[in-house]
Amino acid sequence: MAERGRFITLEGGEGVGKSTNLERVAEWLEARGLEVVRTREPGGTPRAEAIRGLLLDPAQDEPLADDAELLLIFAARAQHLAERIRPALARGAWVLCDRFTDATFAYQGGGRGIEAARIAELEAFVQQGLAPDLTLLLDMPVAAAQRRLEGRLTTSGGVRDRFEQERRDFFEAVRRAYLARAEADPERIAVIDADAPLASVQARLEACLEQRVTPWL
Amino acid sequence: MAERGRFITLEGGEGVGKSTNLERVAEWLEARGLEVVRTREPGGTPRAEAIRGLLLDPAQDEPLADDAELLLIFAARAQHLAERIRPALARGAWVLCDRFTDATFAYQGGGRGIEAARIAELEAFVQQGLAPDLTLLLDMPVAAAQRRLEGRLTTSGGVRDRFEQERRDFFEAVRRAYLARAEADPERIAVIDADAPLASVQARLEACLEQRVTPWL
Repeated sequence: MAERGRFITLEGGEGVGKSTNLERVAEWLEARGLEVVRTREPGGTPRAEAIRGLLLDPAQDEPLADDAELLLIFAARAQHLAERIRPALARGAWVLCDRFTDATFAYQGGGRGIEAARIAELEAFVQQGLAPDLTLLLDMPVAAAQRRLEGRLTTSGGVRDRFEQERRDFFEAVRRAYLARAEADPERIAVIDADAPLASVQARLEACLEQRVTPWL
Repeated sequence: MAERGRFITLEGGEGVGKSTNLERVAEWLEARGLEVVRTREPGGTPRAEAIRGLLLDPAQDEPLADDAELLLIFAARAQHLAERIRPALARGAWVLCDRFTDATFAYQGGGRGIEAARIAELEAFVQQGLAPDLTLLLDMPVAAAQRRLEGRLTTSGGVRDRFEQERRDFFEAVRRAYLARAEADPERIAVIDADAPLASVQARLEACLEQRVTPWL
């Protein structure tokens, strides 16, 4: 029986560079001989991605109720845990996930104002004690992240999904909620200053991995 | 300010005649001058119907995890409550719904074996105390309901969705769970023997409405 793999999540607001840096973390782990499963939330399996499609759909006239949004996110998470994350960890693979429950506390809690206690109730219901072993929080001022995002939208045709259309205050609240969670749980959540050229951010990430992950190998 | 409307649900397994009898109940209420909103679960709004689509999709190779199914059902319910049921009740309309949370206790609880306490936790989370004023449970032996269903499938081309493919034991467990709920809450849940010609079932339904609903008018 293989030793259980580790569960690492990447968190942060829009435009902080999660995708690029997730790949760098995966390569760092693979260079040490580990099997890495790259995945994301909401989503990560075909059925969970179908739920993501409902969450991101900006087209319908009907607003999505806050509780419905929250329950859809945790439905996708339950599916992802059952069909992908738990089986991977059980066979000894490391799971590297772009967003997880910290994002729910940041976006639906901080951003939309859903009480943290309500989110924690569903977290306990779905995760039954499973939490990431390490969370890398990429942080930068909202204005800087939005400038990056504007550049990306200009080159990609400018289509924004429902979350990307949210207003500036929303992203400030998301950032505050992320930082508050890191402050409350520094053992699990490492804050990486992402407001720097890519090479510097990656050097910070690797230093963090050396310090936090190397002792597990 | 109008008096709050009443919330009536119709429950029962596959093939017991819910659709036909729901229309009869609606007509009985409308004949008494009431505004009736006919709806169903899972579904009842465009977004909730999209969630229903994910629940009934038999096509994907990936099994839908029990918890994911349960959370999707309550996500659809939260949306339905926020966007349709609560607004209708608030303006004084009566809401007549084909299935509600009793179906979750019967199908996901009795049928799939999810603990009733877990379902009750999500019920409290989403409904915040709102429950049907009256539930009409159409009951008949599973074998009789399945014979009706076979007849219907033969004439409709025989396509079955994921739930309809479930095995006989499952439907027996669903029926037991429904009857146990009726036994535990006879003030709210009226059991209507539906194993009879339509005219007899409708006479029983109307007698039940006379007894239970007329005092509210």
